[in-house]
Amino acid sequence: MLDKHYLYTPGPTPMPPAVAAAMGQPMTSHRSSGFAKLYGAIVEKAKAVFQTGNDLYVLTSSGTGGLEAAVANTISSGDKVLAIVVGNFGERFARLAEIYGADVTRVQSSPGETFDMTDVEKAWEEKGPFKIVLATHNETSTGVTNDIAPLGRFVGQTEALLLVDAISSMGAVDIRTDEWQVDVMVTSSQKALMTPPGLALLSISAKAWPIIEANKSPRFYFNLLEARKSFGTKNTPWTPAVSLFYGLNAALEMILQEGLPNVFHRHHRMAKAARAGSQGLGFGFLADDCTASHTVTAIVPPQGVEAAGLSKALQQNMHVSFAGGQGDLKGKILRISHMGYCSELDVLTAIAALEMGLMKMGQDIEPGSGVKAAGLALL
Amino acid sequence: MLDKHYLYTPGPTPMPPAVAAAMGQPMTSHRSSGFAKLYGAIVEKAKAVFQTGNDLYVLTSSGTGGLEAAVANTISSGDKVLAIVVGNFGERFARLAEIYGADVTRVQSSPGETFDMTDVEKAWEEKGPFKIVLATHNETSTGVTNDIAPLGRFVGQTEALLLVDAISSMGAVDIRTDEWQVDVMVTSSQKALMTPPGLALLSISAKAWPIIEANKSPRFYFNLLEARKSFGTKNTPWTPAVSLFYGLNAALEMILQEGLPNVFHRHHRMAKAARAGSQGLGFGFLADDCTASHTVTAIVPPQGVEAAGLSKALQQNMHVSFAGGQGDLKGKILRISHMGYCSELDVLTAIAALEMGLMKMGQDIEPGSGVKAAGLALL
Repeated sequence: MLDKHYLYTPGPTPMPPAVAAAMGQPMTSHRSSGFAKLYGAIVEKAKAVFQTGNDLYVLTSSGTGGLEAAVANTISSGDKVLAIVVGNFGERFARLAEIYGADVTRVQSSPGETFDMTDVEKAWEEKGPFKIVLATHNETSTGVTNDIAPLGRFVGQTEALLLVDAISSMGAVDIRTDEWQVDVMVTSSQKALMTPPGLALLSISAKAWPIIEANKSPRFYFNLLEARKSFGTKNTPWTPAVSLFYGLNAALEMILQEGLPNVFHRHHRMAKAARAGSQGLGFGFLADDCTASHTVTAIVPPQGVEAAGLSKALQQNMHVSFAGGQGDLKGKILRISHMGYCSELDVLTAIAALEMGLMKMGQDIEPGSGVKAAGLALL
Repeated sequence: MLDKHYLYTPGPTPMPPAVAAAMGQPMTSHRSSGFAKLYGAIVEKAKAVFQTGNDLYVLTSSGTGGLEAAVANTISSGDKVLAIVVGNFGERFARLAEIYGADVTRVQSSPGETFDMTDVEKAWEEKGPFKIVLATHNETSTGVTNDIAPLGRFVGQTEALLLVDAISSMGAVDIRTDEWQVDVMVTSSQKALMTPPGLALLSISAKAWPIIEANKSPRFYFNLLEARKSFGTKNTPWTPAVSLFYGLNAALEMILQEGLPNVFHRHHRMAKAARAGSQGLGFGFLADDCTASHTVTAIVPPQGVEAAGLSKALQQNMHVSFAGGQGDLKGKILRISHMGYCSELDVLTAIAALEMGLMKMGQDIEPGSGVKAAGLALL
């Protein structure tokens, strides 16, 4: 069987050839003027994608390391934290705060739902004020996107900081870091930013710095004060993953060349096609149309189809990788990623593979119905 | 001027073509069976290089992150720690322990010197017992290698754990993790392991696990208990830097193919050539012959030659990069790295470049004297 793989898992996502080529460049010293120029260029491009004028740094770690940097630099033991949890990654963010000793109040939603501002206001009245508010922009585990704008307006009127996990949406969805008043925005390289995993990107607001400066939690590698100090000479405090910086620079260039509005539009269309195609094959959804993620679609198999079995068959027979469910959703859903280096045609391929998989499992579906529905959604 | 660069800085080091090619492989899901197989293979090879039967994990971070993992998992606030500091990186390790609240006693040496076991014994008598002992195997800032064996014998008789930074020597020097009774051995990808920066490797002894399990310091990304749990399925708790794993696997394969004794011998010979060549050009040394590092040679310019000026000229006129001094040694020394993807001929090239640089600066040296001395040392 041909060793050709189709990657539809929500990170790492497929790597563009230009990124692979960039990563093959000879190693350079991170204390060289060449690296300083590279880092400076990356930060400028990343600020455009983040839509921010805030400080922005690149750390050598996965996205989880980026979330830990956000928490360790702003939360000390005993601090009151409000965590908006709509899925697994929101829960991880909350758990991180607890590990750093925070007194965490959770505003929780059912899988597939987004949060409700009235719940936030209620929690604030009952348990507030909070020092820090944690939110997930795009919840990868359930395929929903939270509306951060009203949350930002609310938190912006308080002394609290708003920390947002945009790991699986930055570079795919219109994220307005400054307009939404997000104090620490976190993303990572391996999702819509089309670069292999290993880098986290964080923007930090002017409002956040005094809190970071005063914060007592022990941290060294993830100390943002060190990152700020080193950035004075466009450098990093510790040895950065130079190859990934090369790759990220190429990927950001691709995004800005395509144009942010076009990138956002493409992701929206891919999501529509994924939903229409899945629906045409009899799948249901966790999320409704309005809050469904533009980067990852969580689908619920039709009666009689076992999600894990279908996923395994697609992997073994066609080298097609979808993600499964996490936590309580394990075995109940499939997740199709359509972000980063992914086109509408790639989504049709995913739907065609799903259709083949279902037919091979003996499901009674009309051949072509999935791709037909997806195609119509794109017309 | 031809855009061809000669990298003699002690990390990142030059990348072998096989590593670059491996890193260009298509992205894969880190939850795939393919990744599990890759991680398993890397760990087996790394254990051979570490000469250990202990558990071993690969973290996505620089070496400093690896040192923080060692500290955050074994040190709680108030713990008594003995830190052996022979240079900048030893000081960084000690500072890390202090950030995690340790009560640190330092055994300190002058730049270019290694530590003395009698100082350790004295410190133990006066201030001990300690819970944790920190040591640097190869001090990159001064180019000396500490003898860890007697320290390991000493600490092994106590309840303390020995944490060793072997970032700039692992894969170049004969390091016997188990024979030396090192509880946590730390290295990283970008030095003698010939892979771009972004990965830290840690081995953990059976003696260390109960301490790690009981440790109270907050940590999430660097939590070794999570690394151990995930390794049950040859996986990582957070998204790993997949491309760097590809690269590291190829690099470890190169090391084992060459054969560890041959690799160690090559590094020893490169160090001899670097010293002889530098001496032939009138340079002095920080370290003496017996304790001089096999991976990095720190040289003191002859009277009248300014280290920073020479370094800058080499960089600008020949694209040759040496490292300078750190801290108190800033502007006083040059450091030539000869580790990883580096041959004896590459050392001759470095010496030839030094010679050209000196001559262009008007130094009165006999043409060819550096390369001649280095070559004779290799006969």
